[in-house]
Amino acid sequence: MPKQCTVLGQTAQLLPIKIRQRIAGISPRPRNIVNDCRIYTCLKATTGMDLGKEGIMPLVEDAVVWSNQHGLVVALKGDEFVNPDFAVIHAPLSLTPVVYPRARFKLAQQVMPLFNRLVDAVAADEDYLEGTLRHAAQYDGFTGRLLAVLHATRSTRDEMRVAGRNVVLGIHRSDYMLDQPSGKFLQVELNTIASSFGCLSALMTRLHTYMASRITSLDPARLPANPTLEHIPDAIATAATAVGLREQGGVVVMVVQPGERNAYDQQWIQLGLWERHRLRTVRMTLGDIAASAKLDETTGTVTLANGAPVCVFYFRAGYTPVDYPTEAEWAARELIERSNAAKCPTVAYQLAGTKKVQQDLAGPGVLERFLPDSRDSGLLREFFAGLWSLDPRDLTTDPGVAAAVADAVARPEAYVLKPQREGGGNNLYGRSIVELRAALAAGGEQLSAYILMQRILPPSNRSILVRNGQWSEAETLSELGIYGTFVRHGDAVLRNQQSGHLVRTKTSSSNEGGVAAGFAVLDSPYLVD
Amino acid sequence: MPKQCTVLGQTAQLLPIKIRQRIAGISPRPRNIVNDCRIYTCLKATTGMDLGKEGIMPLVEDAVVWSNQHGLVVALKGDEFVNPDFAVIHAPLSLTPVVYPRARFKLAQQVMPLFNRLVDAVAADEDYLEGTLRHAAQYDGFTGRLLAVLHATRSTRDEMRVAGRNVVLGIHRSDYMLDQPSGKFLQVELNTIASSFGCLSALMTRLHTYMASRITSLDPARLPANPTLEHIPDAIATAATAVGLREQGGVVVMVVQPGERNAYDQQWIQLGLWERHRLRTVRMTLGDIAASAKLDETTGTVTLANGAPVCVFYFRAGYTPVDYPTEAEWAARELIERSNAAKCPTVAYQLAGTKKVQQDLAGPGVLERFLPDSRDSGLLREFFAGLWSLDPRDLTTDPGVAAAVADAVARPEAYVLKPQREGGGNNLYGRSIVELRAALAAGGEQLSAYILMQRILPPSNRSILVRNGQWSEAETLSELGIYGTFVRHGDAVLRNQQSGHLVRTKTSSSNEGGVAAGFAVLDSPYLVD
Repeated sequence: MPKQCTVLGQTAQLLPIKIRQRIAGISPRPRNIVNDCRIYTCLKATTGMDLGKEGIMPLVEDAVVWSNQHGLVVALKGDEFVNPDFAVIHAPLSLTPVVYPRARFKLAQQVMPLFNRLVDAVAADEDYLEGTLRHAAQYDGFTGRLLAVLHATRSTRDEMRVAGRNVVLGIHRSDYMLDQPSGKFLQVELNTIASSFGCLSALMTRLHTYMASRITSLDPARLPANPTLEHIPDAIATAATAVGLREQGGVVVMVVQPGERNAYDQQWIQLGLWERHRLRTVRMTLGDIAASAKLDETTGTVTLANGAPVCVFYFRAGYTPVDYPTEAEWAARELIERSNAAKCPTVAYQLAGTKKVQQDLAGPGVLERFLPDSRDSGLLREFFAGLWSLDPRDLTTDPGVAAAVADAVARPEAYVLKPQREGGGNNLYGRSIVELRAALAAGGEQLSAYILMQRILPPSNRSILVRNGQWSEAETLSELGIYGTFVRHGDAVLRNQQSGHLVRTKTSSSNEGGVAAGFAVLDSPYLVD
Repeated sequence: MPKQCTVLGQTAQLLPIKIRQRIAGISPRPRNIVNDCRIYTCLKATTGMDLGKEGIMPLVEDAVVWSNQHGLVVALKGDEFVNPDFAVIHAPLSLTPVVYPRARFKLAQQVMPLFNRLVDAVAADEDYLEGTLRHAAQYDGFTGRLLAVLHATRSTRDEMRVAGRNVVLGIHRSDYMLDQPSGKFLQVELNTIASSFGCLSALMTRLHTYMASRITSLDPARLPANPTLEHIPDAIATAATAVGLREQGGVVVMVVQPGERNAYDQQWIQLGLWERHRLRTVRMTLGDIAASAKLDETTGTVTLANGAPVCVFYFRAGYTPVDYPTEAEWAARELIERSNAAKCPTVAYQLAGTKKVQQDLAGPGVLERFLPDSRDSGLLREFFAGLWSLDPRDLTTDPGVAAAVADAVARPEAYVLKPQREGGGNNLYGRSIVELRAALAAGGEQLSAYILMQRILPPSNRSILVRNGQWSEAETLSELGIYGTFVRHGDAVLRNQQSGHLVRTKTSSSNEGGVAAGFAVLDSPYLVD
């Protein structure tokens, strides 16, 4: 579930606010020595300057112009009376890539199909979802509402399942930070809805490949392939074909937020669907769907106002209560859920991506229920940070939880308090771990809607960050996302792949000054051994 | 020599002002029936609507988003305090291509190498240039100044020529309008300097290919190949290699106007030089060159401040007196002319592209001096409009000229009065043919700086024009440009090709209302038999 942060008046879904929470209080972070020595100094050596404006600016212009030429762009927002609707500007970007250890990166790619399978297995166990999320839902109305839709549509789903007609489509992104003490990528969250930035990230890899051609000390072979521009449309098309309405003119509905038509990350998927698969995309809000889509209760087929049947509903909205302002939007969600179209995601997939489920899976033996092969579960656990329930029932019955909470109270800098879900309307968001003490003292039931997480300690890098054609040099932290695509038709898994990656980098200093808060940029990995 | 016209606050070099002159007074123009029936009606049939906003807007959004994704963009100008320096927006464009007769289009492609040879032959005959332009130069200081540079550098050039070291690079664009009465493309002008829009035009062809994939009644096979993105960089690289400074780190200098760094048509050439040939481009104004470039008088090599030798000077400026505000810029032009770098163009090439030379070549036997094979000259003459000198000496001695002038006075709507050159500072520009009467009555010597031209009568089309994400439907006129590339090393012609095309379309109604004046867009040809 991406979050909004404001980048100089532009709305960009970049680094989650929790990174800022996580790094608050510890400063300075130990530097990533590899990055300092190989990239940054390389850049110095190449330009023959101490990174003064004269040496950097031509490279920045190269990067900005290349981005504007190749659609690595975002909508230019601002005064609507000044800027035309369709003006764009290069996406905020890092001039050079960020160093990551090759072996750990490859491992993160390798396990992505396991995470895809895990989501599918968890989502299929609706009793598990209901049981695990029941308490959290009491204090989180949005989760509760999703559970209600799940419950209400269960019989329809069971019929489809029995008939072997259900087509499942997963486009996931597992987010990690490199934990300096352990040397491991530890999972921040697993996104099962609206996993964004995939296409722009593929363009970032191409940009850095171009930069590596201009800066001779950078080796383009160290930039891993990033096939999101192909894999995401291909996964959607595989699901559309499996649903079987293409000969009747079936379309993909991209469920979007109102007024969002200049979103280039999404537009690249639409272009890929057309160019690679001749699939048309219709952009609709949940409100549009409520107003004009019709569900045939017998066949399960949804048709749009122009008569086109829907093969796939692909959500780039719907992850926050803001997207459901009235009952009409909830009715649309339920209509989609009852349809025979592939949904990316189903309500069950969306719930499988919640923090509470992430935390529960980390508990002893839970992951293993869904991935019985111990090699699989063992690999996944390499990426699990410490995660504990804050449900008062667990606090009293589970000694592991009690010990962790006691440690968190004693050493708050080593932990993060995370809400069950993210997005608008969650008013405990900006507070720090010290909330925990007060809440524990009050013995609050509402803690069920939160989890306690080990704080990941990523290395600090130095980066040249570029936005609006201007550059700045900064201490930064980076987060890696690995995309996974998954399609299942009945019992047949048609696709289960690692499908590319995303690196987002943000200034670590923004926590101190506050002025540059939210300055996050797109980046890419540079693999070293 | 491209001219400036203002497109909603953006500076775009699009349709020449003379088109507006040419069409003044005759209205309405007979419509291009083919266009009406096949394209416009096709569009109606495809969308199933009477071109109402509902049907067109999705196609317009498709086109605009595709353009923003693929670098078919121009700089977003406007309030500098509001818009960041590097914001861009799709180029002004026509939603669908314009119909042209295939045979005539192919013929225009076919003769382009002949025009390349013609320019080369005319430019090599410096006595001819000096003789032909002497009188015009008396009333046009800019032409006079270029002639002076030609004269001053002649001995250097002769030495290079004798040594077989001279490398000549031509990137030309021959502009035509389809003449409805004759069915021929008649030449408007032959550009030998700063022939622009080539790269954006190649992207226009790709855009219309995409549109043809979305609008089933359009056949993408009718959009001719447009290889400017490859041919222009390839021609420059061939010249750079022939000059022979590449192993010493030789670069291409793109001579630009001050402050112009966001010019995407130019940036695509730079990217092509890098991606296809690993040639670096340095953008410099004539002032920059005057301040920092050094000419080695012995070898003829120009080196930049960082020590890099210059293989090629490629001009995207220098065609107007505005580009030479001080003597320093003229000194830079002379330094370039004396150097061993390939110049695109040389002063001689630039002068070979003047209107006066165009007019003189049309006279009996003149073209044939430069292209002795009568098949060649016969082919070229298929593209010549009627052209006559207004030099008072010719008026009295040449009966053909006298007859044409008498006819022009009687039927001004059938003729155009054209200045020797275009660009800033020419204050007779906006006036109509009726000037001629007054000037003739006064017996003005200054008429030497003008030529009289048959008025070309292009068909009127209907187009959907798109700028700043908004569309409008209009009666339009189109102009076709064919690019040619030419490289010669001593006596060896290394390259002589037709290299793509450009179509610019503008509203014909802008002459009447004046509000939309200058609304010109990029377009592409759609060939019918």
